[in-house]
Amino acid sequence: MKAKVYVTIKENVLDPQGTAVQGALHTMGFAEVGSVRIGKYLELELDTNDKAEAEARVKAMCEKLLANVVVEDYRVELEG
Amino acid sequence: MKAKVYVTIKENVLDPQGTAVQGALHTMGFAEVGSVRIGKYLELELDTNDKAEAEARVKAMCEKLLANVVVEDYRVELEG
Repeated sequence: MKAKVYVTIKENVLDPQGTAVQGALHTMGFAEVGSVRIGKYLELELDTNDKAEAEARVKAMCEKLLANVVVEDYRVELEG
Repeated sequence: MKAKVYVTIKENVLDPQGTAVQGALHTMGFAEVGSVRIGKYLELELDTNDKAEAEARVKAMCEKLLANVVVEDYRVELEG
């Protein structure tokens, strides 16, 4: 089973990396770009067939390691 | 219009960050985790209503700045 995890910075938290990329895009002539937010995208291969258990386990991984839940949100999608 | 951009490391390119996370997850007791691949997830607000033009522009941003096309793939989704 494959898990896709999206880790994003919470809406009310500043994203200096996104701001830097926005500035670079403006400098390059992409003036239509408004806010830019940058997060992480993870793909995990899981050796299990129990979807409910897999989801609970991946959420535990996010809480403990993959996301900083103070300033980040996460979303999990399971496939196969 | 909102663009979501997924930047992932190409299949045949090593991902040392993913390998490190896999090792950490194993140490924490998540033995079911196989390969871990880590990429970037970007959300861009675009001040335009022309979807076809927006897609071409975002792809140009990826080629020029957001992705290193030598070792990374990217995928663009447009919303709204």
